Amino acid sequence: MSADGKPKSSPRKRTAAAAPQAEQPPAPSAQAERGSAPLFIADIAVRWRDLDAFNHVNNSNYLTYLEESRLQWLSHVPGPWFDESAMPVLAASEINYRRPIAWPAALRVELYCERLGNSSLTLAHRIVDAADADSLYSDGRVVMVWMDPASGKPVPLPAAIREAAA
Amino acid sequence: MSADGKPKSSPRKRTAAAAPQAEQPPAPSAQAERGSAPLFIADIAVRWRDLDAFNHVNNSNYLTYLEESRLQWLSHVPGPWFDESAMPVLAASEINYRRPIAWPAALRVELYCERLGNSSLTLAHRIVDAADADSLYSDGRVVMVWMDPASGKPVPLPAAIREAAA
Amino acid sequence: MSADGKPKSSPRKRTAAAAPQAEQPPAPSAQAERGSAPLFIADIAVRWRDLDAFNHVNNSNYLTYLEESRLQWLSHVPGPWFDESAMPVLAASEINYRRPIAWPAALRVELYCERLGNSSLTLAHRIVDAADADSLYSDGRVVMVWMDPASGKPVPLPAAIREAAA
Amino acid sequence: MSADGKPKSSPRKRTAAAAPQAEQPPAPSAQAERGSAPLFIADIAVRWRDLDAFNHVNNSNYLTYLEESRLQWLSHVPGPWFDESAMPVLAASEINYRRPIAWPAALRVELYCERLGNSSLTLAHRIVDAADADSLYSDGRVVMVWMDPASGKPVPLPAAIREAAA
Repeated sequence: MSADGKPKSSPRKRTAAAAPQAEQPPAPSAQAERGSAPLFIADIAVRWRDLDAFNHVNNSNYLTYLEESRLQWLSHVPGPWFDESAMPVLAASEINYRRPIAWPAALRVELYCERLGNSSLTLAHRIVDAADADSLYSDGRVVMVWMDPASGKPVPLPAAIREAAA
Repeated sequence: MSADGKPKSSPRKRTAAAAPQAEQPPAPSAQAERGSAPLFIADIAVRWRDLDAFNHVNNSNYLTYLEESRLQWLSHVPGPWFDESAMPVLAASEINYRRPIAWPAALRVELYCERLGNSSLTLAHRIVDAADADSLYSDGRVVMVWMDPASGKPVPLPAAIREAAA
Repeated sequence: MSADGKPKSSPRKRTAAAAPQAEQPPAPSAQAERGSAPLFIADIAVRWRDLDAFNHVNNSNYLTYLEESRLQWLSHVPGPWFDESAMPVLAASEINYRRPIAWPAALRVELYCERLGNSSLTLAHRIVDAADADSLYSDGRVVMVWMDPASGKPVPLPAAIREAAA
Repeated sequence: MSADGKPKSSPRKRTAAAAPQAEQPPAPSAQAERGSAPLFIADIAVRWRDLDAFNHVNNSNYLTYLEESRLQWLSHVPGPWFDESAMPVLAASEINYRRPIAWPAALRVELYCERLGNSSLTLAHRIVDAADADSLYSDGRVVMVWMDPASGKPVPLPAAIREAAA
């Protein structure tokens, strides 16, 4: 901060740190906590462009890492996971930023099925260091809903998804 | 979907739609619901590059719209909002995707102070159509925490932030 | 650089500057130089996320600004500019980075038709400050080619493009 | 295209293809052509988010792939490649888009030193399929210039760069 009290727009030296526990109680996936096996694990290489002007991976890129992992999982599901009357959409996301991510870094994204509804699927995640699964960068979850594009109404989950996520 | 049941990796014709209420109960900001005045309003022009292969704005870009709005707000705070021993970090984000966003589109992001803690600030948001504030694309919130970069410990909110958000 | 000579991966204090004229001769569009009227002018607001860890707009975003301007132009062309047998693809890009771009900034992108071929169109550009057209951030050009997607062969430019660009 | 001739803003079925040779003569790096050894090879995994609404990797991401490769190279240079009075900036880029890139894809980026000037370095590139180096997606070059941030003037290349690139 300059002496005249004028705020600069970009605090360059910021060092992010873990969210303080008292104010931001952790809400990890019960599955992830209990140590159940992930649905899918994806390895993601951080790109330098993922950094922002604070020199850490930008908060929006966590969603990109999750999306990449989710689509890799879906592309491995042994059966049709969408058709013209049942398409998945993202309904909600929740992300806890536990530790800043630098460049270069090799990440591992673990996906867990947290809830299997009629039309929706809640995928919990842990983003950890590829070399140290105890080094937690982020946890949280996203909710996917299968919809009929024509009607805009939710439809039952495809059987392949139900089986793959069970 | 091809005849052999092999999933394609990119369902191109997906039409996103509102999250079904039964499975994904809305959790809008109480402030936003009650109609209290926003802390800040930012106008954002959607870029064609914000679209993904589904031809809608990608889920990660919502965080970019919020970040842009938040930093515009911070740059308007009349007083120092960070210094070398008190830097804001993003601790958590929650986003509800209510309706897909197309290109071109003029968006309005409304920020609300939902909670003012000792060290943290919860900013709720509504992303609406710039020409129709009832056309809700997204709501949710982010939690910002002010930290001492040297110690990694939370520190009291700067007075300028406390006043601006009160 | 640290005393031990170990290179850090991110030089944070870098200040970009104009490309030296001797080594990088300018190659602006002749049309732009001669002061002919732009084909199209787009106003672009820089986003904070466009910055990279050097605190300037990342080099890749210049292409995004050009793309946004180009698609705005195309959406204003009074007539069909593509159909199932004639789609535009980007064949080449050339960008000169004249001055770094900070945040916030209001940019103006001027597009010029530099060359109208049988199947291709060369669009030159100038990216300037919205408040000062003499403040040049970038110039260069992109080559678009209209192709038949089925055959992969170039096809004649659509009449609407030929008229709009002439 | 709709029957009324109104252009849609997003031609979804576009299939990109190689640039037609007659209109867009190739200008590959002489070094790359001659088969000299690359300065550096980086492996890049395409992310689904790199796709745009045309379902191909967006043109701006090629610069991100080059940047990632360049910074990986620089981080491997055995000696200081910048200090407070000599920082590299990107002065220009030229990209030929030879073939569209889909998702998923494993890319290999080959960097070549095309020209070593007093203050500048021209890095040519080839982006190929990781499994088939003859499958060329892109070639081109970028010009980097080392500058003194304080004066904005070009400065001699650091010895480590000169040695690494020679």
